[in-house]
Amino acid sequence: MDSAKKYFSKDISDRERAIFEGGIKLGAIYHQFLGLPISKSTDFDNLEKMIEQSVKIQPYVDFVKIRINKEFLTKQKVNEYDYHNLEGKMIDISLTIKYNDSKVKMRCKYIKELDYPLMYIEE
Amino acid sequence: MDSAKKYFSKDISDRERAIFEGGIKLGAIYHQFLGLPISKSTDFDNLEKMIEQSVKIQPYVDFVKIRINKEFLTKQKVNEYDYHNLEGKMIDISLTIKYNDSKVKMRCKYIKELDYPLMYIEE
Amino acid sequence: MDSAKKYFSKDISDRERAIFEGGIKLGAIYHQFLGLPISKSTDFDNLEKMIEQSVKIQPYVDFVKIRINKEFLTKQKVNEYDYHNLEGKMIDISLTIKYNDSKVKMRCKYIKELDYPLMYIEE
Amino acid sequence: MDSAKKYFSKDISDRERAIFEGGIKLGAIYHQFLGLPISKSTDFDNLEKMIEQSVKIQPYVDFVKIRINKEFLTKQKVNEYDYHNLEGKMIDISLTIKYNDSKVKMRCKYIKELDYPLMYIEE
Repeated sequence: MDSAKKYFSKDISDRERAIFEGGIKLGAIYHQFLGLPISKSTDFDNLEKMIEQSVKIQPYVDFVKIRINKEFLTKQKVNEYDYHNLEGKMIDISLTIKYNDSKVKMRCKYIKELDYPLMYIEE
Repeated sequence: MDSAKKYFSKDISDRERAIFEGGIKLGAIYHQFLGLPISKSTDFDNLEKMIEQSVKIQPYVDFVKIRINKEFLTKQKVNEYDYHNLEGKMIDISLTIKYNDSKVKMRCKYIKELDYPLMYIEE
Repeated sequence: MDSAKKYFSKDISDRERAIFEGGIKLGAIYHQFLGLPISKSTDFDNLEKMIEQSVKIQPYVDFVKIRINKEFLTKQKVNEYDYHNLEGKMIDISLTIKYNDSKVKMRCKYIKELDYPLMYIEE
Repeated sequence: MDSAKKYFSKDISDRERAIFEGGIKLGAIYHQFLGLPISKSTDFDNLEKMIEQSVKIQPYVDFVKIRINKEFLTKQKVNEYDYHNLEGKMIDISLTIKYNDSKVKMRCKYIKELDYPLMYIEE
């Protein structure tokens, strides 16, 4: 039961709703974790699991996989304190939203050619 | 020209793309401004304009109107310092995304019945 | 070796420096994690450890303990989706900063009497 | 009257309290505005004023001046959409805290030699 459904325009399909819910989550994850202090000694498995958990508890999330691109950690200039702030291009998000029978796979991934983290719909 | 288009699944319609881009922006605005210190002496016209401007410069934004619900300011318990942190339910966002010929109107608004700020598609 | 020291006013004592560094970290933690989606099914041990780790990698941190006050989770009205956003008053931070021989213990804790999360120096 | 004073260790001087309050505010401003979408067409005067206002309403703030370093805007690689997210090194904060008779001037400023935004006490 979706008690929010009546607030939506009647002509929104399940697939459109899934796309909308996914977009919201991608935008939110990105801005929630931007700037987080990380270093080479960070337990990334744990961090990724923790971010995944904060997403999974939200409605209509069927699957989520977070990967922090540690390659940017070594490329980025290290300050004397040897820690960084999490940047957008380090965040790789695979997200599947399921609304009724519609499943949509989305992604947030740094695209070298565009030189920014692109959010897009995979299928 | 949309250089990101090739990364999207081929079967995404213009309308679906508009919905996706709008969801991302709603999720991002919400988490960007949550916690902002405000008080009764805040120049809300200016603050709203500033948030609108940070949205307008993003792609495919056709229209955006931000309103901070000041009524929650008076209801919320005031601390000795007489300032608050911006809460989700104070943020009212009207957003129209235009992708090619598809225009979609979206909203983020506190719904009393649900007791949370709902993001939904108006038309 | 503290390569930033020369930018500081000469008359700043080690203890004052420790207090300054602690204040910065308390303000930053608070705004970094505000709004994080949590629920009763969240693995709080893991979440607390993850936040602690993001603090420990920063300079001059001698000790940090994070506790999320789960009592607020049950008191807060639950939305239909049964998840919350982390609020300031749920965050309890114990932080010890050590700069040279000066150790300072600081705290961020919700104080019922004041009805807000107070950041203060314990000793 | 400072109703929070009794929670502080008795041996904290006015100057130490001012330093603590300033550190908190610097850490908070930094993480609050990180990631904000900006572009060359952003009205920076307005944005700076808005950030200043969100600081001024907080306790013990005697003076605050925000400057966004627009030079980084042109140096940073522009994405196809021609907008950026506010980075730490773009934020220049001058902050004076006054607690009773103690005034302390603090700064957050990108230091080229260190290659990161340093928060320090000027006097």
